[in-house]
Amino acid sequence: LPIGLEEEVRLEVTKRLNLLLADTATIRDLYKKSHWQVAGPTFYQLHLLFDKHYEQQAELIDTIAERIQILGGVAVALSADIAELTRLERAPRDREEVPVIITRLLDAHHSILKEVHDFAKKAADLGDDGTNDMLVSDVLRTNELQVWFVSEHLVEMPLIRAK
Amino acid sequence: LPIGLEEEVRLEVTKRLNLLLADTATIRDLYKKSHWQVAGPTFYQLHLLFDKHYEQQAELIDTIAERIQILGGVAVALSADIAELTRLERAPRDREEVPVIITRLLDAHHSILKEVHDFAKKAADLGDDGTNDMLVSDVLRTNELQVWFVSEHLVEMPLIRAK
Amino acid sequence: LPIGLEEEVRLEVTKRLNLLLADTATIRDLYKKSHWQVAGPTFYQLHLLFDKHYEQQAELIDTIAERIQILGGVAVALSADIAELTRLERAPRDREEVPVIITRLLDAHHSILKEVHDFAKKAADLGDDGTNDMLVSDVLRTNELQVWFVSEHLVEMPLIRAK
Amino acid sequence: LPIGLEEEVRLEVTKRLNLLLADTATIRDLYKKSHWQVAGPTFYQLHLLFDKHYEQQAELIDTIAERIQILGGVAVALSADIAELTRLERAPRDREEVPVIITRLLDAHHSILKEVHDFAKKAADLGDDGTNDMLVSDVLRTNELQVWFVSEHLVEMPLIRAK
Amino acid sequence: LPIGLEEEVRLEVTKRLNLLLADTATIRDLYKKSHWQVAGPTFYQLHLLFDKHYEQQAELIDTIAERIQILGGVAVALSADIAELTRLERAPRDREEVPVIITRLLDAHHSILKEVHDFAKKAADLGDDGTNDMLVSDVLRTNELQVWFVSEHLVEMPLIRAK
Amino acid sequence: LPIGLEEEVRLEVTKRLNLLLADTATIRDLYKKSHWQVAGPTFYQLHLLFDKHYEQQAELIDTIAERIQILGGVAVALSADIAELTRLERAPRDREEVPVIITRLLDAHHSILKEVHDFAKKAADLGDDGTNDMLVSDVLRTNELQVWFVSEHLVEMPLIRAK
Amino acid sequence: LPIGLEEEVRLEVTKRLNLLLADTATIRDLYKKSHWQVAGPTFYQLHLLFDKHYEQQAELIDTIAERIQILGGVAVALSADIAELTRLERAPRDREEVPVIITRLLDAHHSILKEVHDFAKKAADLGDDGTNDMLVSDVLRTNELQVWFVSEHLVEMPLIRAK
Amino acid sequence: LPIGLEEEVRLEVTKRLNLLLADTATIRDLYKKSHWQVAGPTFYQLHLLFDKHYEQQAELIDTIAERIQILGGVAVALSADIAELTRLERAPRDREEVPVIITRLLDAHHSILKEVHDFAKKAADLGDDGTNDMLVSDVLRTNELQVWFVSEHLVEMPLIRAK
Amino acid sequence: LPIGLEEEVRLEVTKRLNLLLADTATIRDLYKKSHWQVAGPTFYQLHLLFDKHYEQQAELIDTIAERIQILGGVAVALSADIAELTRLERAPRDREEVPVIITRLLDAHHSILKEVHDFAKKAADLGDDGTNDMLVSDVLRTNELQVWFVSEHLVEMPLIRAK
Amino acid sequence: LPIGLEEEVRLEVTKRLNLLLADTATIRDLYKKSHWQVAGPTFYQLHLLFDKHYEQQAELIDTIAERIQILGGVAVALSADIAELTRLERAPRDREEVPVIITRLLDAHHSILKEVHDFAKKAADLGDDGTNDMLVSDVLRTNELQVWFVSEHLVEMPLIRAK
Amino acid sequence: LPIGLEEEVRLEVTKRLNLLLADTATIRDLYKKSHWQVAGPTFYQLHLLFDKHYEQQAELIDTIAERIQILGGVAVALSADIAELTRLERAPRDREEVPVIITRLLDAHHSILKEVHDFAKKAADLGDDGTNDMLVSDVLRTNELQVWFVSEHLVEMPLIRAK
Amino acid sequence: LPIGLEEEVRLEVTKRLNLLLADTATIRDLYKKSHWQVAGPTFYQLHLLFDKHYEQQAELIDTIAERIQILGGVAVALSADIAELTRLERAPRDREEVPVIITRLLDAHHSILKEVHDFAKKAADLGDDGTNDMLVSDVLRTNELQVWFVSEHLVEMPLIRAK
Repeated sequence: LPIGLEEEVRLEVTKRLNLLLADTATIRDLYKKSHWQVAGPTFYQLHLLFDKHYEQQAELIDTIAERIQILGGVAVALSADIAELTRLERAPRDREEVPVIITRLLDAHHSILKEVHDFAKKAADLGDDGTNDMLVSDVLRTNELQVWFVSEHLVEMPLIRAK
Repeated sequence: LPIGLEEEVRLEVTKRLNLLLADTATIRDLYKKSHWQVAGPTFYQLHLLFDKHYEQQAELIDTIAERIQILGGVAVALSADIAELTRLERAPRDREEVPVIITRLLDAHHSILKEVHDFAKKAADLGDDGTNDMLVSDVLRTNELQVWFVSEHLVEMPLIRAK
Repeated sequence: LPIGLEEEVRLEVTKRLNLLLADTATIRDLYKKSHWQVAGPTFYQLHLLFDKHYEQQAELIDTIAERIQILGGVAVALSADIAELTRLERAPRDREEVPVIITRLLDAHHSILKEVHDFAKKAADLGDDGTNDMLVSDVLRTNELQVWFVSEHLVEMPLIRAK
Repeated sequence: LPIGLEEEVRLEVTKRLNLLLADTATIRDLYKKSHWQVAGPTFYQLHLLFDKHYEQQAELIDTIAERIQILGGVAVALSADIAELTRLERAPRDREEVPVIITRLLDAHHSILKEVHDFAKKAADLGDDGTNDMLVSDVLRTNELQVWFVSEHLVEMPLIRAK
Repeated sequence: LPIGLEEEVRLEVTKRLNLLLADTATIRDLYKKSHWQVAGPTFYQLHLLFDKHYEQQAELIDTIAERIQILGGVAVALSADIAELTRLERAPRDREEVPVIITRLLDAHHSILKEVHDFAKKAADLGDDGTNDMLVSDVLRTNELQVWFVSEHLVEMPLIRAK
Repeated sequence: LPIGLEEEVRLEVTKRLNLLLADTATIRDLYKKSHWQVAGPTFYQLHLLFDKHYEQQAELIDTIAERIQILGGVAVALSADIAELTRLERAPRDREEVPVIITRLLDAHHSILKEVHDFAKKAADLGDDGTNDMLVSDVLRTNELQVWFVSEHLVEMPLIRAK
Repeated sequence: LPIGLEEEVRLEVTKRLNLLLADTATIRDLYKKSHWQVAGPTFYQLHLLFDKHYEQQAELIDTIAERIQILGGVAVALSADIAELTRLERAPRDREEVPVIITRLLDAHHSILKEVHDFAKKAADLGDDGTNDMLVSDVLRTNELQVWFVSEHLVEMPLIRAK
Repeated sequence: LPIGLEEEVRLEVTKRLNLLLADTATIRDLYKKSHWQVAGPTFYQLHLLFDKHYEQQAELIDTIAERIQILGGVAVALSADIAELTRLERAPRDREEVPVIITRLLDAHHSILKEVHDFAKKAADLGDDGTNDMLVSDVLRTNELQVWFVSEHLVEMPLIRAK
Repeated sequence: LPIGLEEEVRLEVTKRLNLLLADTATIRDLYKKSHWQVAGPTFYQLHLLFDKHYEQQAELIDTIAERIQILGGVAVALSADIAELTRLERAPRDREEVPVIITRLLDAHHSILKEVHDFAKKAADLGDDGTNDMLVSDVLRTNELQVWFVSEHLVEMPLIRAK
Repeated sequence: LPIGLEEEVRLEVTKRLNLLLADTATIRDLYKKSHWQVAGPTFYQLHLLFDKHYEQQAELIDTIAERIQILGGVAVALSADIAELTRLERAPRDREEVPVIITRLLDAHHSILKEVHDFAKKAADLGDDGTNDMLVSDVLRTNELQVWFVSEHLVEMPLIRAK
Repeated sequence: LPIGLEEEVRLEVTKRLNLLLADTATIRDLYKKSHWQVAGPTFYQLHLLFDKHYEQQAELIDTIAERIQILGGVAVALSADIAELTRLERAPRDREEVPVIITRLLDAHHSILKEVHDFAKKAADLGDDGTNDMLVSDVLRTNELQVWFVSEHLVEMPLIRAK
Repeated sequence: LPIGLEEEVRLEVTKRLNLLLADTATIRDLYKKSHWQVAGPTFYQLHLLFDKHYEQQAELIDTIAERIQILGGVAVALSADIAELTRLERAPRDREEVPVIITRLLDAHHSILKEVHDFAKKAADLGDDGTNDMLVSDVLRTNELQVWFVSEHLVEMPLIRAK
């Protein structure tokens, strides 16, 4: 592959990218699940917000998979493979309440963010600048921003009475 | 009229379409009323949602009225006629609370949906495929989707504390 | 209401705005009726023109109703209320010929324009600058322009033979 | 063909679709002819309207031809084949007056609409839901709507003097 | 649920819709997999085509899931659930050659199309017109069209020398 | 001027272009006048058509004036200069009937078209290919097309009764 | 005319509006002249700015002329009439230097602005709220803003050396 | 300055406009602060709403500052100057609860609206029609509308249980 | 006709334009036929390319027909007339292989291009500059460009192995 | 906060980000001030350029403030706080000449760029990859580019006479 | 090649087109160079103008190269070939002052325009109407217009003091 | 230069950036050459793909040149300079076969990617964060992605027969 990286670097990175791809596919699906199953007085705003995050995660999946292909790997795509590879906890099939949905999403983000911090450093050490840049500019910053948007909805706050 | 349907079919269908038009105009106005009069901590999201549904019902009105004209009928349009023809209950002029607003909207949708199921079958039996298609593809599916969006806001659910 | 206007001003203005809202809803419906029911050699151009005016009146309705809500009033929305409040003459349910349609629309505009001239002066006297501005910039100028467009179609004029 | 329909169904349907394709191509050309050749005081509005209908019929042609290919048939495309297959009457090459143009278009619509009503029922009986849906949702409803727009121009009506 | 359908109808339909949702998610993922893993002289055109079909299947998923929610069901979303529910054969994780990719896609379409023909009839019999309409207008017609586009690439044909 | 044309060519051409500019400004104003002053049953379509032609003539004016500046001339712009230079007949300030308006426009087009045919040949003979191209591709073809659109409205034709 | 204004008011206002129309047409042409004829190191920015102002004045012309027609008057349009009616000084046909161009434009704006202040008050006194609103909101504010943009270019200021 | 207003009028008006500019900059910043710092179950809708109002206030700032420059004044822009000039109360740097945020915004709107009513009358008395128009059409109506949108969120209302 | 061309010129040119129109309609249909019927490994790219060329030829048809009407002729439009007038060879109704399709298209282009070269010279000799310009700028250059795009696909070339 | 960064890192970074936010708000205001107050022969181009840079700095402010919120901090927003926190020199309230304006802007950029180089390194050392990426990709590169655009206007250069 | 032109014509024309292509590539690069390297008080406007001309020349390059391919030639593309073929003088690598930049651009335009006048005549004589049309409509008119825009910046003119 | 970088850093970096600029200009031209000269059964898709990559490389050129100017250097632009500076092998002027084209492009990418990896590290060591970010985020990632797209076309793969 004429991209200026050693094969063993490429192998190590693509293997780890496929795990990240599986996690990203899982959080993407969690957002779609939440988009469909959310309920309650704030249904409409959460329905919109979860779909926006779903779209952003779906874009990340394409970015990660393209990177795997660029490095000569083979990106995983099918649900059975995603289910086997992901390191995120399996969620129940049924509806959950809003705070449970959000807590579950935050746990998934946390797991991904810790991995990305570590992986980005590794990619830099291996000299794979492109992977490092994608992990930080695309994956890490998107997940961090989503944490903020989602977590603010769990803050306890009166809505009507002023102090 | 060179459209391949017998006059008595056209007469029967247009008469019933005018009643549906009156009901649709009424639920359209209910959504605009709710758009203007809603209040409370979720004002902005409901204000936006009710207007979206208003727009969709306004489009349905044009679709139904065009169908009446296509079939050689005369579509009703004026408020006095709508008020006389509609089969939906008259709402008070004043503000109502969110759950009352939503319950009222759901009742109106229910009434329309039951009528459409019955009317669609009738149109099919009469060989008026175009009316059947409009009732199912346009009127029925739009009303069904709005029921989902609106009714989810009535589900009792904690917003902050996870179980 | 923290908008710098006395309650009695707001009460007087909102009451009168609701009557104007009813008239505007009525002329809006007249345009939609005409859009659907017009016929004859100039069908297509009038069909388009009447719908354009319908859209503009529908926007005015939102503007007027928002103003009522801004001033602490409750905007009317439902056809039964519109029918009771409007000061415009009730039109027949059936088709009318083009000159009759246009004459009816011009009568409605005339009634609205006279009221708006008077109302605008009253609002200015009461110090309600925002209502005055809305009445003149939005309601009055839109209705004046529509009068021109519509009335030109009634001018008797040969179409083919030059003098 | 992995689409879940028997070959004899596909053969019967595609044969009939090709005839409908020829008729649709013919009415499409009639609209283009009228778009170019119309004259008189309402030239500009009819010029625009006929082109809009031309565009819609041209889209129907693509939809019908795709359906033929989907079912394993071969869609006809060339003028000689259209001329041989169409069941619509051949129009003169020269200019005609507006009422003649419109009457000719209405006759063509009538012929197509009768065929589509019959064909749609047949397709449903054969279990070819996709063809039925295309015939009703796309072909039938488009032709019905065009009949309304075009036929209104033939209604006798005074343009200036009110009754 | 105020939508005019009996609970047992809704239960039966939503259960079957969830299976269809799983199959649709699987074929969606097959298209994304093919989008990433395809190779050879026609890489670029197939890369684009497979992504277009992926987008269309992703839209169908939203449509089906919304229908499930409309009917009071709970739409499945997560890869583990998709993997358990889908009736389509599991594909290998690795790259496959173009004809194998296409054959696999056609098999998946075939399976879905047969199910949809049967399911649509069932929904009609149960009086669930909305589900019937969605199955035929959205799911069936999209899958049929994709079969055509994809299968044409397998036709053996000289590219340069004319007969 | 580094454009490869002799000064005497440039002088001769720019002088003649300024006359054409004056004529084009005059027909542009005739179209705006007609746009404002037209009346009668076809008001709306002619109001739109005349404005479209006005826009096209206004573009031509910019094109001609730019050409004058390109050739080192000074384009005329002010109404007093236009009035002095134009070779078109002065029209009355008041309203005219539709056939008179159209006849006046056709006369103006005729005058311009004859001049452009002659001028284009002259420019070609002088080796000023750019001016020739502008005269034919832009000025001549635009004016020819407008003649067609406008003149069709004068054709005597029944609107309702077929022969 | 059904617009709620006395004929003598309409006559007085339309007469004065036609004079303003002539002045506005003249300043519009001055901007186009300047757009074409400007030269020097700041050619490109002034070329763009003058055309932007030209466009805004051309829109004002349409607004003023529509107002004249609304009030039952006849808007002037042709260059000979503009030249006769305008109260602005006639400019030379030839190129002028940048400061002369700008000074000439500022003089024209000044003349128009003084007239508009006076005219607006008159229209208000006559009860013609629509004309007053158009004069202030459209004509006056546009001209004031253009004065600012244009006049800043005449301020003497070093471009490179700081004090 | 060639805009037809006396210098002393311009001085008095620009001085007062700069104070209004400072207040508008302050409420603009309050909206951005609220956009960033809001929290709780309705975070996403308020985050969006506050940013929309921020954008509208930022547009008002440009409008007011342009007016100051038009009148020959010098618009203030820097935070230290804004802080010194504004008449609105200084808010704490830290997060506040939703009802406190909204109450603070309403207080700021109230202060601005009272000032604008008074200032508009003054500008009219001074004959500065342009400033009067800007204050009423732009500043006053925007602030009034924002009061409505924001204040509705403080209305106490049950979200789920119907009466 | 006030366009500055003699009647005999117009007659000669319009007659020849109608033949060109028939040929252009035929090649347009050939492209649509190829768009539908193409098959093989490069299906998708040719499907798109043929439709792009179809669109361009459909635009040419409108351009040619408008020119015929401009010159006082009557443009042919219907398939039976096209079939009788075209000078291009009749193609079979059935599918053909890619190289045969392309060769057939190239033959049609060749025939049209030779005619256009000759016709353009003739139009120039007759003084019909507008027709000459349309033939060269629109018809000739479009056909030339399509020849290049289409013919490159017939060049024999290895796709994978480098020399 | 589930983002994988220690609290002390977050505290240190958010504190420094708030200072950068204050500086960015200050340069943003400097650009708006310059946009309004600039004068001289190049007014229009600088007016446009300064506003473009204002928009870019306003976007950076949102980016920085979001980062502060992501890290659990509280972004400053109000002018009094900006004035207290910023490290940039206070500019006079009045107009300045172009070279002074530009020099002042360049000084502000210089101060920000030095800080960002240092801060970025610090953020990297602390393991806060997201902050480092934002500082370099967004803040640093935007400020560097603006330096180029602005500083070129101070280069001494003849505008007309070539050497 | 089925385009109706003899091979020797095609050879002669393509050879000369390749030289023109090299010249056009050179002036395109001169514009990009000037876009990057310009400086001084009018930097921003020239930076924008030069890039606009660069874009237009880049489009011309594609047009010329396509023409070469259409005629069976092989278009040159690489810098070494451009450098060898171009007839324009080599410019220094370093920055030049504005008047020098503009003079250099005007020289390049002059050289191209002279060649195009001659070449266009030759192409016409050879019967290659398409090349003639491209040279005049595309290459010549674009270069002529750019000469105007660029050369006006060299006109000596006071910017502030009026005569 | 007020950008916070030492002059010797800037000199070293700009020198190396100019070499990269020359290489990028060369690969850009290779893509345009391939866009024009490609042939064979996959002509259309490669024609489109090569142009997309050309556009992306043209954007990179602007980005690199802007960086050079930001750092106080002078960006090279002219073909003679590009030809002298580039380190990529000179390609023949004539057409090549698809696999040769692609291999040549891959070699060029390889050369650029190796240089960028090395250069990025150097820029980081020198503290020039902006250059490092541009090299990795813009140049490296774009080139890597293009390698994937282009190289997949060389994979040997049957197109029709499945294994």
